[in-house]
Amino acid sequence: MSRIEARRDEDTVTAGPLVGRLLDGLPPEAVLTDPDVTASYANDMASFCPAGTPAVVVLPRTVEQVQHVMRTATALCVPVVPQGARTGLSGAANATDGCIVLSLTRMDAILEINPVDRVAVVEPGVVNATLSRAVGEHGLYYPPDPSSWETCTIGGNIGTASGGLCCVKYGVTAEYVLGLDVVLADGRLMSTGRRTAKGVAGYDLTRLFVGSEGSLGVVVRATLALRPKPPEQLVLAAEFASGAAACDAVCRIMAGGHTPSLLELMDRTTVKAVNDMARMGLPESTEALLLAAFDTTDPVADLTALGALCEAAGATQVVPAEDAAESELLLHARRLSLVALEAVKGTTMIDDVCVPRSRLGELIDGVEQIAEKYRLTIGVVAHAGDGNTHPTVCFDAQDPDESRRARESFDEIMALGLELGGTITGEHGVGVLKKKWLAREIGPVGVEMQRAVKQVFDPLNLLNPGKLF
Amino acid sequence: MSRIEARRDEDTVTAGPLVGRLLDGLPPEAVLTDPDVTASYANDMASFCPAGTPAVVVLPRTVEQVQHVMRTATALCVPVVPQGARTGLSGAANATDGCIVLSLTRMDAILEINPVDRVAVVEPGVVNATLSRAVGEHGLYYPPDPSSWETCTIGGNIGTASGGLCCVKYGVTAEYVLGLDVVLADGRLMSTGRRTAKGVAGYDLTRLFVGSEGSLGVVVRATLALRPKPPEQLVLAAEFASGAAACDAVCRIMAGGHTPSLLELMDRTTVKAVNDMARMGLPESTEALLLAAFDTTDPVADLTALGALCEAAGATQVVPAEDAAESELLLHARRLSLVALEAVKGTTMIDDVCVPRSRLGELIDGVEQIAEKYRLTIGVVAHAGDGNTHPTVCFDAQDPDESRRARESFDEIMALGLELGGTITGEHGVGVLKKKWLAREIGPVGVEMQRAVKQVFDPLNLLNPGKLF
Repeated sequence: MSRIEARRDEDTVTAGPLVGRLLDGLPPEAVLTDPDVTASYANDMASFCPAGTPAVVVLPRTVEQVQHVMRTATALCVPVVPQGARTGLSGAANATDGCIVLSLTRMDAILEINPVDRVAVVEPGVVNATLSRAVGEHGLYYPPDPSSWETCTIGGNIGTASGGLCCVKYGVTAEYVLGLDVVLADGRLMSTGRRTAKGVAGYDLTRLFVGSEGSLGVVVRATLALRPKPPEQLVLAAEFASGAAACDAVCRIMAGGHTPSLLELMDRTTVKAVNDMARMGLPESTEALLLAAFDTTDPVADLTALGALCEAAGATQVVPAEDAAESELLLHARRLSLVALEAVKGTTMIDDVCVPRSRLGELIDGVEQIAEKYRLTIGVVAHAGDGNTHPTVCFDAQDPDESRRARESFDEIMALGLELGGTITGEHGVGVLKKKWLAREIGPVGVEMQRAVKQVFDPLNLLNPGKLF
Repeated sequence: MSRIEARRDEDTVTAGPLVGRLLDGLPPEAVLTDPDVTASYANDMASFCPAGTPAVVVLPRTVEQVQHVMRTATALCVPVVPQGARTGLSGAANATDGCIVLSLTRMDAILEINPVDRVAVVEPGVVNATLSRAVGEHGLYYPPDPSSWETCTIGGNIGTASGGLCCVKYGVTAEYVLGLDVVLADGRLMSTGRRTAKGVAGYDLTRLFVGSEGSLGVVVRATLALRPKPPEQLVLAAEFASGAAACDAVCRIMAGGHTPSLLELMDRTTVKAVNDMARMGLPESTEALLLAAFDTTDPVADLTALGALCEAAGATQVVPAEDAAESELLLHARRLSLVALEAVKGTTMIDDVCVPRSRLGELIDGVEQIAEKYRLTIGVVAHAGDGNTHPTVCFDAQDPDESRRARESFDEIMALGLELGGTITGEHGVGVLKKKWLAREIGPVGVEMQRAVKQVFDPLNLLNPGKLF
C-alpha cells in the first residue's frame, strides 16, 4: 500500500509521463489536462464529500481505449475513478488526488434492441432516458427510472444499482442486467453473464459488478433485459392527517395483494417546498401526501380498490387523476421534490434509508423527532411501497453550527434505519458519504470478505480507491 | 494442496478422530457412520457423474451445529459436501471420497411469513412445496417451481439457482433471495443482503452465493421475497406440424408483448412417452405441442390473442382448457415428461441448454440432426418462453456403444447451444457433469476470476471440492 501511495504522489507532481503514455493509445481530444477543465470532473452531486484533484481526465470511445487506460494505470500505479454523468449522491464518482478520471460518457451507443429476446445491448455512456425512449419505439420498456433519468447514464446506474419510482413493481437496475463486458484493473477484458433469459454457469459475477461503484472493473458494455411496454399509468393522490396514517395505508395496500406501479410519499415540508418552487397547487394542509398508480389494463378499478384502503387508513381526501395529463402533473410534482427541498435553505443532505415497509411509520416518526432535536427542517420524500425513504436535511452551508447539526441528524437517521432492520442505502450507494456506516451494517466479517473480493479484482487498489470501505 | 490431499487420505482410512470431533458438538443421532447408510447419501440424480465414498454424514439441526461441523472440517482439513434433497441433475451434491456429507434436511423450519413486507424467512431444509403452500395460506406466492418441487429443498434451490415452469413470467430462484446467513468454511457466520425491498450497501454477496453449488459457504437461513398470489392460471395447448413452427409462435408471442405465466414445448417423442406412461390422450400426430398459460384477470382474452398468434405461425390445432381441472391435467402431462422419457430406454441424460429465444428453432432443428447422427432417441421438452431446453437423451446404460453415443450427443448439444449464443446450463448447474464445459463458456479470464473468488471464501478448498471447475 505504501508503495502505491508513493507512486501516486510522484504522479501528482509530474503528470507528464502519465499523459504521454495515455496519448500512446488515445487521441489528443480524449485526454484533458487543463486544470480548470479537469477540476470540473472532481465531484458528483453529493454534499459533504471530499474530492481530490485529478491528474488527467480521459474520454475513451472504444473498449480498446479503456483497456489502454487501465494498462497504463496499472503500469504506473495510478488510481482510476470511473465516471458516468456524475449525478450520484454519495461521492462514489469523486476524484482522488492524482487520479485518472475515466469518463465513459462518450461510449454512448445503443448497439442492439431485440424485441424477441427482449434485450438491449448498450455502451455505458448511454443516457437512461435515451435508452428508455429508444426501446419504447419497439414497444418495449426499460423500467429503472432514477430521478436523474434525463441525464444519468446506464453505466452509472449499473455502478450504483440505481432505483427510482418504478421499483415497487419492477425492481431496481440490478434486475435488468443480464451480462457485462468489463475491463479489469490490468486491462484484460472479461465477459460475465449472458443474453439468455436464464443461466447458471458459474458464480454470478454480473451481480457482483452491479452496485460495486467502479471499484472492481470498468463496465464497457451491458446486455439489459427489457419488458413489454405496459399501459400508461393512472395516478391517485391521497391526503393524510399524519405520516403514521399514510404508512398504515401503505401496509394495507401491500398486505392486500396490490402491486401499484408506484407508491410514493411526500410529507408536508416537501409538499410546501414543491408549491413554493412551482406553484403546483398541492394541498398544503395535509401532513402526508400519498401518490399511487397502476399501469394495468383497468387502472380505474385498481385505483378504486386502493383508494378504499387509503380511506380505511384514515385518508382525509382521495383524488384520482382524471387522465394521463393530470397523472403526469402529479408525478412531475413528485420528481421536483429534491430540487424544491434544496431551495428551502440552499443546501441539502439527502439520506437514503430503506426499512422493511412494516417499519416505515416508525422511521417517519423518528425522523420528525430527529428534526426537532436538532432544530432542523427535514423533508421526507419516500418510495413508500419499498420502505425506501429520502429524509432530506435542509440547511445553510454557511452556518457552521447548522451544518454540524445537519451532519449529525443525517447520521442519526441511518442509525434509526439500522435499528428498524433496514439498510443505510436503498439505491444511492455508499461512496465516501456512508463509508463508516457500511461496516455498521454488514459487520466485520462482511467487511473482511468484501475487501478480499476487491483484492481479487483489483490487487493494486487502483479502481476507485477509498470508496465503499 | 498436496498437504490437504494427504490429510484427506488419512481421514478416509481412520474416520475415528473426525467422528469423535464431530460428536463433540453434535448429538449421536445427527452423525451417521454406517457405510450402508452413508453410501445412500453419495449421489444426486445426475447420470454419468462420479461419486466418492463419504466418511460420515451429519444432519445438524442448528446454526451452531453447522458451525461446529465447519470448524471441525477446517481443523482436520476434511472436505464437506453440502446437500439438500439430492434432486439435482448435475452431480453437484455428489460425495467426494472421505468427505463429510452435510445434509441440511433437518433444518426445515419456516421461521416467518410476513404479508406486509412480503418476505419469508426459512431454514435451508424447507421443501419447496411446503413453503409454497404455507405462503399460499397468507395469500402469497413463492414462484420458483422446479419439477422436483414436491421434494427439493430451498437450500438446494439456492445452491443451483433453480428455475421451473414459472420463470418466463416470474424469473428464477435468484430473484427471490434477498438475504442469507452463511456459515463460512472456517465456521464463522456471515449475513448478506437484507429483508428490505431494496438495498445497495456493499457488494452483492447474496447473489454470489446463489448458484454457487455449496462451494463458497453453507446457507443456514434465507430471507425470500414473495409476491401476491395471482389468479389461477388457464392453459392452452397448440399443435404444430414442426418444431420450427412452434418456435416461430414463441417468437411471435414474446415480440407481441405477451407475458404468459408459462410457455412450454414438448416434442413428438416426449408426447408419445407421456402417453405411453400415463395414457394422457395427448395428440401423438403433432410434431410439437406448445402449452401456454395466463394467470391474469382475464386469461380467456389473453389466451385468445395468444391462440391467434399460434395460428398465424401455422398451428394445426389450438385448444384452450375449459377450466382449472383441464389446465391442471395439461400441466401434469408436462411435469411427467422427464420421468416418461426415462422409461423409454431405462436411462436418460438430461441436458439444460438455454439459448436466446430467437435462436430456439435452430437449437431444436440441431438436436434433431444430432439424434439422427448418433442414432439415438432424444426427446425435447423446453421452457420455450425462456429458450431453455432439456434435450433428453434416452439410452440403454447396459449398451456401452449406445452409452458412448449418448455422452457424445450430450456434449454436441452443449456445443450447439454455445454456438447459438446460449449457455450450457439454464437452471441445473455445472456440478461435475459440465465442469469441462464451464471454461468453454466463460473463457480463461472468467475461470481465473471465479477460482480466485472461491479462494477468498474457501482457502483450503474444503467446500464441495471438484465441482464447477
